[in-house]
Amino acid sequence: VKKIICFGEIMLRLTPPQYQKVLQTTQFDAVYGGSEANVGVSLSSFGLDAGYVTRVPDSPLGRSALNALNTYGVSTRKSIFGGDRLGLYFLEMGTGIRGSKVIYDRAHSGMATLQTGMIDWTTVFKDAQWFHWSGITPAISASAAAATLEAVRTARKMGLTVSCDLNYRANLWQYGKHPSEIMPELVRESHILLGDGDTIELYFGLKSKNYAGVFEKTMLAFPNLTYLAMTARQAFHASHNTYKGFLYCDKQMFESKVYDMPEILDRIGGGDAFMAGLIAALVRKHDPQYVVEFATAAATLKHYIRGDANISTLAEVTALMGGNTGGRVSR
Amino acid sequence: VKKIICFGEIMLRLTPPQYQKVLQTTQFDAVYGGSEANVGVSLSSFGLDAGYVTRVPDSPLGRSALNALNTYGVSTRKSIFGGDRLGLYFLEMGTGIRGSKVIYDRAHSGMATLQTGMIDWTTVFKDAQWFHWSGITPAISASAAAATLEAVRTARKMGLTVSCDLNYRANLWQYGKHPSEIMPELVRESHILLGDGDTIELYFGLKSKNYAGVFEKTMLAFPNLTYLAMTARQAFHASHNTYKGFLYCDKQMFESKVYDMPEILDRIGGGDAFMAGLIAALVRKHDPQYVVEFATAAATLKHYIRGDANISTLAEVTALMGGNTGGRVSR
Amino acid sequence: VKKIICFGEIMLRLTPPQYQKVLQTTQFDAVYGGSEANVGVSLSSFGLDAGYVTRVPDSPLGRSALNALNTYGVSTRKSIFGGDRLGLYFLEMGTGIRGSKVIYDRAHSGMATLQTGMIDWTTVFKDAQWFHWSGITPAISASAAAATLEAVRTARKMGLTVSCDLNYRANLWQYGKHPSEIMPELVRESHILLGDGDTIELYFGLKSKNYAGVFEKTMLAFPNLTYLAMTARQAFHASHNTYKGFLYCDKQMFESKVYDMPEILDRIGGGDAFMAGLIAALVRKHDPQYVVEFATAAATLKHYIRGDANISTLAEVTALMGGNTGGRVSR
Amino acid sequence: VKKIICFGEIMLRLTPPQYQKVLQTTQFDAVYGGSEANVGVSLSSFGLDAGYVTRVPDSPLGRSALNALNTYGVSTRKSIFGGDRLGLYFLEMGTGIRGSKVIYDRAHSGMATLQTGMIDWTTVFKDAQWFHWSGITPAISASAAAATLEAVRTARKMGLTVSCDLNYRANLWQYGKHPSEIMPELVRESHILLGDGDTIELYFGLKSKNYAGVFEKTMLAFPNLTYLAMTARQAFHASHNTYKGFLYCDKQMFESKVYDMPEILDRIGGGDAFMAGLIAALVRKHDPQYVVEFATAAATLKHYIRGDANISTLAEVTALMGGNTGGRVSR
Amino acid sequence: VKKIICFGEIMLRLTPPQYQKVLQTTQFDAVYGGSEANVGVSLSSFGLDAGYVTRVPDSPLGRSALNALNTYGVSTRKSIFGGDRLGLYFLEMGTGIRGSKVIYDRAHSGMATLQTGMIDWTTVFKDAQWFHWSGITPAISASAAAATLEAVRTARKMGLTVSCDLNYRANLWQYGKHPSEIMPELVRESHILLGDGDTIELYFGLKSKNYAGVFEKTMLAFPNLTYLAMTARQAFHASHNTYKGFLYCDKQMFESKVYDMPEILDRIGGGDAFMAGLIAALVRKHDPQYVVEFATAAATLKHYIRGDANISTLAEVTALMGGNTGGRVSR
Amino acid sequence: VKKIICFGEIMLRLTPPQYQKVLQTTQFDAVYGGSEANVGVSLSSFGLDAGYVTRVPDSPLGRSALNALNTYGVSTRKSIFGGDRLGLYFLEMGTGIRGSKVIYDRAHSGMATLQTGMIDWTTVFKDAQWFHWSGITPAISASAAAATLEAVRTARKMGLTVSCDLNYRANLWQYGKHPSEIMPELVRESHILLGDGDTIELYFGLKSKNYAGVFEKTMLAFPNLTYLAMTARQAFHASHNTYKGFLYCDKQMFESKVYDMPEILDRIGGGDAFMAGLIAALVRKHDPQYVVEFATAAATLKHYIRGDANISTLAEVTALMGGNTGGRVSR
Repeated sequence: VKKIICFGEIMLRLTPPQYQKVLQTTQFDAVYGGSEANVGVSLSSFGLDAGYVTRVPDSPLGRSALNALNTYGVSTRKSIFGGDRLGLYFLEMGTGIRGSKVIYDRAHSGMATLQTGMIDWTTVFKDAQWFHWSGITPAISASAAAATLEAVRTARKMGLTVSCDLNYRANLWQYGKHPSEIMPELVRESHILLGDGDTIELYFGLKSKNYAGVFEKTMLAFPNLTYLAMTARQAFHASHNTYKGFLYCDKQMFESKVYDMPEILDRIGGGDAFMAGLIAALVRKHDPQYVVEFATAAATLKHYIRGDANISTLAEVTALMGGNTGGRVSR
Repeated sequence: VKKIICFGEIMLRLTPPQYQKVLQTTQFDAVYGGSEANVGVSLSSFGLDAGYVTRVPDSPLGRSALNALNTYGVSTRKSIFGGDRLGLYFLEMGTGIRGSKVIYDRAHSGMATLQTGMIDWTTVFKDAQWFHWSGITPAISASAAAATLEAVRTARKMGLTVSCDLNYRANLWQYGKHPSEIMPELVRESHILLGDGDTIELYFGLKSKNYAGVFEKTMLAFPNLTYLAMTARQAFHASHNTYKGFLYCDKQMFESKVYDMPEILDRIGGGDAFMAGLIAALVRKHDPQYVVEFATAAATLKHYIRGDANISTLAEVTALMGGNTGGRVSR
Repeated sequence: VKKIICFGEIMLRLTPPQYQKVLQTTQFDAVYGGSEANVGVSLSSFGLDAGYVTRVPDSPLGRSALNALNTYGVSTRKSIFGGDRLGLYFLEMGTGIRGSKVIYDRAHSGMATLQTGMIDWTTVFKDAQWFHWSGITPAISASAAAATLEAVRTARKMGLTVSCDLNYRANLWQYGKHPSEIMPELVRESHILLGDGDTIELYFGLKSKNYAGVFEKTMLAFPNLTYLAMTARQAFHASHNTYKGFLYCDKQMFESKVYDMPEILDRIGGGDAFMAGLIAALVRKHDPQYVVEFATAAATLKHYIRGDANISTLAEVTALMGGNTGGRVSR
Repeated sequence: VKKIICFGEIMLRLTPPQYQKVLQTTQFDAVYGGSEANVGVSLSSFGLDAGYVTRVPDSPLGRSALNALNTYGVSTRKSIFGGDRLGLYFLEMGTGIRGSKVIYDRAHSGMATLQTGMIDWTTVFKDAQWFHWSGITPAISASAAAATLEAVRTARKMGLTVSCDLNYRANLWQYGKHPSEIMPELVRESHILLGDGDTIELYFGLKSKNYAGVFEKTMLAFPNLTYLAMTARQAFHASHNTYKGFLYCDKQMFESKVYDMPEILDRIGGGDAFMAGLIAALVRKHDPQYVVEFATAAATLKHYIRGDANISTLAEVTALMGGNTGGRVSR
Repeated sequence: VKKIICFGEIMLRLTPPQYQKVLQTTQFDAVYGGSEANVGVSLSSFGLDAGYVTRVPDSPLGRSALNALNTYGVSTRKSIFGGDRLGLYFLEMGTGIRGSKVIYDRAHSGMATLQTGMIDWTTVFKDAQWFHWSGITPAISASAAAATLEAVRTARKMGLTVSCDLNYRANLWQYGKHPSEIMPELVRESHILLGDGDTIELYFGLKSKNYAGVFEKTMLAFPNLTYLAMTARQAFHASHNTYKGFLYCDKQMFESKVYDMPEILDRIGGGDAFMAGLIAALVRKHDPQYVVEFATAAATLKHYIRGDANISTLAEVTALMGGNTGGRVSR
Repeated sequence: VKKIICFGEIMLRLTPPQYQKVLQTTQFDAVYGGSEANVGVSLSSFGLDAGYVTRVPDSPLGRSALNALNTYGVSTRKSIFGGDRLGLYFLEMGTGIRGSKVIYDRAHSGMATLQTGMIDWTTVFKDAQWFHWSGITPAISASAAAATLEAVRTARKMGLTVSCDLNYRANLWQYGKHPSEIMPELVRESHILLGDGDTIELYFGLKSKNYAGVFEKTMLAFPNLTYLAMTARQAFHASHNTYKGFLYCDKQMFESKVYDMPEILDRIGGGDAFMAGLIAALVRKHDPQYVVEFATAAATLKHYIRGDANISTLAEVTALMGGNTGGRVSR
């Protein structure tokens, strides 16, 4: 089987235990995560051959970040060492009416100073079938955006399928460029897009009165695209949401069933789990309806896994797709 | 007051903390439990004189298992030491739509190699009024089944009341016998039975279109039986169930009220708590309606106690029976 | 800005972790709290200048109690050292249908042996604008009641606004006096009162068929009063309540919106958070409707903060007032 | 085998984890202990039949204290419920040059208000061969001293061997009596005494220039005595001591070898472990040299057990006596 | 009493528990510390009036850093909010032959972008008697160095005593200046200096064949200096060191006794504890021999306190000075 | 670089935290380890390309065991799934005079039922240069011994260097064969041997009056051998040992310096760390003196790493070889 390569920034996530606030805590739970890394872990947990490319400092923290991916079978042999620090983020986990709060401390990371030419993309993409990137990397710095362009172009040229999670982060894009100056060029090299209407408007200036309309316009603007996906979350409160997925292809909208998600354990990485579900199902050549159901079930299950990444197995996701939401004890 | 003797296997339960999966954890919370041991702890917590008979290795683990029962006042003086290992099970505690998952590692335990003659039942039953066993023990091994038969026959001969929780475990019964070859003979020596329709069909080949019908047929098949009980659980998701109890005697069905159970803390041992409630109320000569209400309230409260066993007091259960479900702070 | 002085007893709170019962635990989580201290911490967290006066033993425990207030910016320079022990209480945190249980061990504390003359109230109240006390202190001992009277009289004389949370604790009042012999004299020196109908009847013998009626009678009985407040909680179960606040002034009742509170994290100190919200909004000269909305939002948010005190900021409370209850991740 | 009855006060011990000071901690480790309870646990761990008599409040804390003894097989059936609170103590565990610090909060406990007549000593001593008490109980209150006298007299009359650990606690003896007014009468009913020169001088006014001289004088003053024992500890620092035991009988001094104790884990209860070693070896009719060697090895091993009580087995202590101090891994 | 003002950078310290390496841990213990902040906490713990001035971001992390000082009574009212991030450092705590390892992540902090004029030093120094700074601050950035100069000049002009810990950090000084270009000008405004021979040579180009010689030359070079101090540590291994202090004044060298430090708990902040001891003893007008003995005892005791700062009391330090190193249990 | 393949059994290790005994604990720390797996992790940490072959059940436990190796870069792609359970062992960590205690529960594991033919050794050894096995595997079961023979013969035939740690485990060898019936045949296919005199006598019946003599005889008996190694440990107590290594080749004995190991953190896996050091240094073609010094330094450092495996880097080991045992803080 050929590899799926994910590219992006991985951070140390520090969470006060037991829903404490940072002001109260004397301890932080530590996991490593990042949007594209989370996709890699989920793909590997589904039994696919996933690789992850990033740039982290050659320090115990940088090495730990890569080790965390190795644990779940993601190869990091093509990641490079460099830069001054590993980005990190503090997460005050919310519950009930108190929402979660993320405090980023990711500036000046190894990925922020990544330059074109540092990663040998031709070698990275040898034996690979798929390249996944997200809108976070070009938002970090001009040089990271350039490196992303270098990557997608090489991937495209080498015949890989390219997927992108638009992933807008308002607190990034600090280097003087607007997403609309950078993203179109990158998306032009991609085939599968995960995003929502607001982000599509912000990045590409496209909008419509409904989802299908937006998707149609995006398809027209980027003729390379074959699949457009979106997720919709309804939040009753921090611990109780619903989740639904959409997939648009061949001018048709496919919608998943709606999952009720009570007693959410950890909602960080829900979208990444959806993305990984999309990729896994597409790689396995499922039909669009199955793809969107699988991706949505995967994203739903992620809400009940601690940490950033969905470590659920294929069997666990398909059991949920099959309706096993009652939470019975399995012995 | 005369003793109530419980007989069965006790295991070390290892649970990753904070709803982690085994794949993620660096620590396990440890408690000791087993269906019949849980019944003993609950009876003792209600102020009854409970004894527990088992066979565990003479190791720190075997001793810890017995100590755990002593802690709550259950006498283990008649338990014997022997065998190679203590059974154990790993519990991935579920929440929301993710159900709990039990991974058993109980083969080759001290109870599996228990032989008839090892336990001096005549001494065990001196000063005892009641003997409780479950369908788990005869499922472990042929010799454990034989020892169970030895026990129930002696108990019956010595005039004890005998109760049985049918407790079907699909992953046991590995020694070449079908439950229907073993269980009828054992149940023939028993007076009180806790079980559900599926298990009754599997064990005895009896079925009917409704609960009352099944119970009537079981009564006819086993004329020694005086009480038949059952519980019904509706699972909205892993953390939200309802619970209801049924008691059949004198050709009449008594039904408890239905308890709503939101925010379940630990559902392992719910049925054992019900069983202990049945025994405690019957020993105290309550009428059938009270018996089923008490047992159901006990089982409900167990869902809010960490660990396998219901350590609630009589007063706490009767407060719940009295309608105290609002969860106010008691100062 | 002038100081707000809170006066009362602070205790060590010991909570078995993870909803364990005292019978099960091998560890206690430790925080320090007390009704009036909690008010002080919340006021300081809102950016107000709060001071706390109490009497604790000069021991690591007494000093830790004061340090816990200093952490959040509450000045304890006017507190005094003395007495034999720090009061403490054990909290079995409830969940679902199991309510929380408080076991007090607060007798013989430094506050119980506080005498008039020990605290130099004139110095304490220099540069202060407000004095807050509660019905707990006069319930501890005759001498503590006398010291409270000394305090409120000095405060009144020095022109401070005086607020009181009636806070009835049935397990106190052990020294031979009924609240009705002590409380009226103290309330006569106060301007703002937080209390409910039952307590008002118990303390003052006043009752009526509805809230407004009770409040009107209380206003008549204590013409010094300018604001009367009350909270109403509906408890579906221990982890799911609703909350609503009432404020009565100028013969008019102002009612807050009702907050739904699912997945409650820690409901101890909800009333204290409301009281602090009242004081903060009144000090900032808001109109009655805003005052009651702010106080209720503050109390609601407290249910999602671990520990006794509301450490939420002004911005967090006003965000909730503005309708931000969906619990979205803030990045 | 006949019972060994221990009588005294049990407390909740609260220890900040990881050598933290009380000023720093957000958590306390909880164990239950008390000098005579520790003796009971050790005796039971050696396989002897131990009972413990005390008075604790009928609360989760009182019950937990008894449960903690039941865990290790000590019977508490003859203990009674009553009084307002369970005594407790805070332990700042020392290490290196920082010594451990105990902060007692034991006043007003159930044992402090124990009265003669409350415990039915005749029933307690049925089937018993030995009674153990310590100098702590008569130091608590006048009525506790009276109850101790009642106990030792009944024990003596019923033919039990009586042992006493003199155990002077400077912070007790607050009720107006000097130990020398109380202890002689109690010691007159005892046969075995554990104590040191300073305490013997304080209690009985006896002194001499060396250990043997003090013991000889004590024997003369209390002709009922058959064994006198003492321990000597040399402290290089908090984590490195040496330990040695002495036993005097038949006008002869028996001395144990000296144990080096590096890397001490928990030195609380060392003397209690020695006392239990004495009793266990005497009950088993060992010669004096063996008795003192066994008791000293037991006390030494206790320093490497967390908590107040020595839960080591007979085999573990005799292995140490046999010279197994190298700390090899046993597989 | 007049204030002692400390000025510097405070960081979040993240330590894997139980001597784990960063590569292994899933949790970090969190405390806040920094050389000058540690001095402040120790001074406050000795009962002196300490203030701390720094610049931290207005975030939960920045606020927590200040709160950590408030806890121990250090006033942070004159600290200012600003900058992008709070510096942090990871500490792999060593033991035995494995030394501790510090991984700094402190670049781009609020202190690094501190500018002259941001802090109103005249207000800061009102009612103050002493100003303490260290060689870390001018090493962070050119603007931080300039701000330090502004501070010492104002302090000197306003008549405060100025102390400095030379504190060389090889991984700082990244902004293009050598310490010898910056430090002399700052030291010229100071009266008390803590440093060692290597640092003095590096900063000032002064060296001699022994301590006294170096100190004499330094005194000649900086005639404003009245006291020079130094500490000497001998490391057998990470958990066993000795410690000794030196104080030079009036052309005379005063040496403390040597402390043996077995079983070290946390050696970070030993020098800061010494510095605080110096200041506290000098403020209290002790003679030089007492000063050096007190400072050395304080530093020694710090090695047995978790966290960066010495929270020992005056009484605890003087007890150690008095020879109480045996680590007996104090009850 | 060519692979180094390690083959053996991996187990779940469960350790009560904080030096508790199994009888006391409510929690176990969990790591995965086994002699040959530990060698693999250490080799990978040194930057070598290590693979591990074993047979574990296809369960969360089996997968976690492999993941634990992946974390540190060891490839487990050639391991197979099968068998009923993962072996486990309980470790009571000793300290001071209390030695560590291991309670094995490893019978009936996947490795115990491994059969010849299950692992495709030809594929495993493709691109490999080295095969490492130990005396534990042939001790588990007859079929595991046969599989080991199959492995070493294939390895030899394919030209790999074969190393063996004799590793005698008295509690294994339960299947009716004496080591001397099995081991010689296996060792005949090996080139490097780690073992001690007692084991060599037990396995091969060879003995002599000194180390060199034993080694010489072993070399004669197994002419295929090129290197023989041994370690000597002197145990003052559980937390303080010394360690020394020996290497014999070309009829010459090379001895390392002796390391003093105070304050040992975790001595499990010391020998495996030595073995990995040997392999790493031999692969890197160092001379015998360097090899034994490196291996001994690696083993020493392991004693200060939690868990079974030495995760130290090459740089950390060479720093220790260079004399860096003082435990200074590295910043």
